[in-house]
Amino acid sequence: MDEFGLIRRYFTRRARYAGVIVGVGDDGAILEPAAGLQQVQVIDTVVEGVHFPRGLPAADVGYRVVAVNLSDIASMGAVPRWMTLALTLAGQDEQWVEGFASGLFEAADAHGVDLVGGDTTRGEVAVATVHVTGEIEAGRALLRSGARTGDTVFVTGSPGDAAAGLSLLEDGRGDDYLTRRFRRPTPRIATGRALVGVASACIDVSDGLVGDLRKLCEASGVGADVDVGSLPLSDDIVAAFGRDRAIEFALTGGDDYELCFTASADAVAGLDGVTAIGVITDGGAIVCRRDGAIVDVDDGGYRHFA
Amino acid sequence: MDEFGLIRRYFTRRARYAGVIVGVGDDGAILEPAAGLQQVQVIDTVVEGVHFPRGLPAADVGYRVVAVNLSDIASMGAVPRWMTLALTLAGQDEQWVEGFASGLFEAADAHGVDLVGGDTTRGEVAVATVHVTGEIEAGRALLRSGARTGDTVFVTGSPGDAAAGLSLLEDGRGDDYLTRRFRRPTPRIATGRALVGVASACIDVSDGLVGDLRKLCEASGVGADVDVGSLPLSDDIVAAFGRDRAIEFALTGGDDYELCFTASADAVAGLDGVTAIGVITDGGAIVCRRDGAIVDVDDGGYRHFA
Repeated sequence: MDEFGLIRRYFTRRARYAGVIVGVGDDGAILEPAAGLQQVQVIDTVVEGVHFPRGLPAADVGYRVVAVNLSDIASMGAVPRWMTLALTLAGQDEQWVEGFASGLFEAADAHGVDLVGGDTTRGEVAVATVHVTGEIEAGRALLRSGARTGDTVFVTGSPGDAAAGLSLLEDGRGDDYLTRRFRRPTPRIATGRALVGVASACIDVSDGLVGDLRKLCEASGVGADVDVGSLPLSDDIVAAFGRDRAIEFALTGGDDYELCFTASADAVAGLDGVTAIGVITDGGAIVCRRDGAIVDVDDGGYRHFA
Repeated sequence: MDEFGLIRRYFTRRARYAGVIVGVGDDGAILEPAAGLQQVQVIDTVVEGVHFPRGLPAADVGYRVVAVNLSDIASMGAVPRWMTLALTLAGQDEQWVEGFASGLFEAADAHGVDLVGGDTTRGEVAVATVHVTGEIEAGRALLRSGARTGDTVFVTGSPGDAAAGLSLLEDGRGDDYLTRRFRRPTPRIATGRALVGVASACIDVSDGLVGDLRKLCEASGVGADVDVGSLPLSDDIVAAFGRDRAIEFALTGGDDYELCFTASADAVAGLDGVTAIGVITDGGAIVCRRDGAIVDVDDGGYRHFA
């Protein structure tokens, strides 16, 4: 059973506290501790050797663990306010901690987020977990579940760059645009805020564009048609990997921390860095087309039909 | 540099958001997201092989990670409301997850706490991090910093039992009162609530009674005289280990998740399960006396002076 199945099966229960507006299952939880005040709370872990390569500079690890949480806040349309940190060290020295803290605060400062508490422990691998509390106007949070047939599917930035950058890092390649997109994700807080009242549904892309779009569609009870030719590929990824592999990275690579959202086709005029890539359908399937032909995309990657 | 030094040096910064009432450095953070509404937020991690032995039943791991967080909520005098979970699995199977969830919800249900979100990942060791949000009447949270010379020092329960139980577990011993005190800590939520407006300072005992009392005294700018003869040792720990080792476990063992607090001597009349063990002094030192003689207690354990 995969992560999502485990969560659904063992950790999803009806909340009893009336202040729980949205519980397990969206990008973040929505709580209403007082009438008219809603919070978004998110938690995300990065594990050495799983979510980042051993040897990634400590400052990048600190930056990433904040950024991936802020991306969840962005996907709900909320404003991040404060965070707590649980850090497990495995032989990392004080210099590592200093670097980690510098990256952590760099990401937090960029969005006005205070670190208010934490817990430091020792373990066998380094693990950093951050919890962020954000605020959202009551009833206005962006959910996964609001997409409707005929909505346009949009994505921010240029998906695929981070996964391409990670593959370069794993080959020992250094500091360039693509690796930086992995090391320093950009949480789309401002775009998320601009989408409140505009987008019908939103999710942040952490596990790959098609996989996360599928979660949005499942939550909304719809399907989607994606036009692969309209994917906003960066010049860098096409130059480094060619168009076919770039498309594969964009559709299934993960680690993008871009927003994938649905809205009416003309609703996002004036929003920079947003590209229409498809349309919501009333089937349940995610169909990707390239030059009119259906391409097969699954968890194992991306393949053309012969 | 130890955990506390690292936190002080690299993770303590002045908060900019006006809603941060107490940040890094107490048992939990106090936030004021709206006028008159205060929250307590805590985060704690348990790591396989560090905070619990490999082979500890999954239900106990789930129970413990919730209980240790609720203990921090208790030490602030707050009411726990909801929690989020970040779980890293390392080869644990679905049966383990089922057991973990059952223990987690058992601890949460005992205190009316909802699980509202989370993140499940894969790693090389099992790590569970829980974040709890509680509520406290504005300005009423119990802090570490309010102890005054002449206050009486109290402790709940019978400290030492959990550490004694852990040593039995590590020797392969099974299910009895002492091991259960390790496997299933009791967060003292009701006592914490009763201490609001009564205790001058409070901390939860996770790292050992003397060590945590030292943190309380440092935060308050005072010292303490502890009467070792008045420690509330359980019959079980004395029977299993003798009085001397029982005292050592009680003073330095850790994992108690009892509350250590200060108040006037008569302020706690009617509170069950609370024992006076000493007095706050205006020196900076923690002095432990047994039958009038000073005993030396340090991080390395507990020793009689010759």
